[in-house]
Amino acid sequence: MKIGRVVGTVVSTISSPVFEGRRLLLCDLLDASGNPEGGYLICVDTVGSGAGEAVLILDEGNSARQVIGMSPAPIRAIVVGVVDQLMVDGELVLREG
Amino acid sequence: MKIGRVVGTVVSTISSPVFEGRRLLLCDLLDASGNPEGGYLICVDTVGSGAGEAVLILDEGNSARQVIGMSPAPIRAIVVGVVDQLMVDGELVLREG
Amino acid sequence: MKIGRVVGTVVSTISSPVFEGRRLLLCDLLDASGNPEGGYLICVDTVGSGAGEAVLILDEGNSARQVIGMSPAPIRAIVVGVVDQLMVDGELVLREG
Amino acid sequence: MKIGRVVGTVVSTISSPVFEGRRLLLCDLLDASGNPEGGYLICVDTVGSGAGEAVLILDEGNSARQVIGMSPAPIRAIVVGVVDQLMVDGELVLREG
Amino acid sequence: MKIGRVVGTVVSTISSPVFEGRRLLLCDLLDASGNPEGGYLICVDTVGSGAGEAVLILDEGNSARQVIGMSPAPIRAIVVGVVDQLMVDGELVLREG
Repeated sequence: MKIGRVVGTVVSTISSPVFEGRRLLLCDLLDASGNPEGGYLICVDTVGSGAGEAVLILDEGNSARQVIGMSPAPIRAIVVGVVDQLMVDGELVLREG
Repeated sequence: MKIGRVVGTVVSTISSPVFEGRRLLLCDLLDASGNPEGGYLICVDTVGSGAGEAVLILDEGNSARQVIGMSPAPIRAIVVGVVDQLMVDGELVLREG
Repeated sequence: MKIGRVVGTVVSTISSPVFEGRRLLLCDLLDASGNPEGGYLICVDTVGSGAGEAVLILDEGNSARQVIGMSPAPIRAIVVGVVDQLMVDGELVLREG
Repeated sequence: MKIGRVVGTVVSTISSPVFEGRRLLLCDLLDASGNPEGGYLICVDTVGSGAGEAVLILDEGNSARQVIGMSPAPIRAIVVGVVDQLMVDGELVLREG
Repeated sequence: MKIGRVVGTVVSTISSPVFEGRRLLLCDLLDASGNPEGGYLICVDTVGSGAGEAVLILDEGNSARQVIGMSPAPIRAIVVGVVDQLMVDGELVLREG
């Protein structure tokens, strides 16, 4: 998994039952210090995460289908959790809430 | 998923039922600001997207086969939707149509 | 998929029925302008492509096994087609034959 | 697989039986000399590895599910072993314990 | 597949029947000229390759499990063959033995 931050949303014509009622989030990928590392992923939200939150991103189709509870389903990257706390080298890098 | 922009088409000798009647699109990958980030993918179109449109790209074989409705089928990256609107940090980065 | 150009061949001790009678091609990866972008893949040829040809590369195990018609089989990247024509931004970037 | 070093931990709202009682480790990826190469992965610990240890990281969903012994399960990157010794070009690059 | 060169070995606490009696090799990834391109992979040896040899690396779990003949098994990157000869642009770039 990678750590990301929710910075945007996508509205699109995508149509599949797996996307109904689920938001598409643009998540900046963060480095181990909690700063943007330059890339991003469009992720399907599965936990109700909101703008600005640090999140855990799981980028594997079979995992995504299992979390959503639909298979088959066209899906790969999802937000699987909100990061409450990230400790690196004994320091608190991220603390949410 | 990633956001891309349709900038080209490929004509090839590729032969498999999955490609019959479906165009191969060259899509520039876009960064979170909607600008080309330097890479591209050749994607099978599944939504009738056209030149210049911003699109959602899903790059996973099982997802692609499910969207196309053929399995097995030799396919991985597809265009799954047109981007109507991309909001990042509260700003409208892309707006189509 | 990505676009590549066949620039070399590999002779190896690899042994599996899937490689019998099939050549291993070293393909430079091309950018959207048809120029080498710096990387390469060793691909199993499935279409009789030759040195110097621009080709479509499909890099997914399940797709490769389906094209070859053997499963299970240890294979991932294959040449699935010769590029006849690549149009980008309305210009003819590649034209073979 | 890649070699990494455990440098941090993540506490999150992630919820799935596969994560119960298992820590999420932030592992810096190491180069062939045993130095950080700039990237990282959030890995599920499967061997009781601790802060500062050099570890083997296996980043494939099906492998992770097999090691954990749960399928389906939303998981991809795991720590599968502690590196006792890494020899490169005849030199001992890493030696733990 | 990619071309690599065996430059090291890893001794670890990894434990799964798939690793019994099989060495873990650190392989530098080579570019199309046969020179190190900067990255590496830890691969399970399946052909008895030795230090300094140029090898073919196949990095897909299902392929690896098929070559090893164990499924399920936690494995992804393997050495599948020794490179006897690599020809690029009509020149002999690598010749082993």
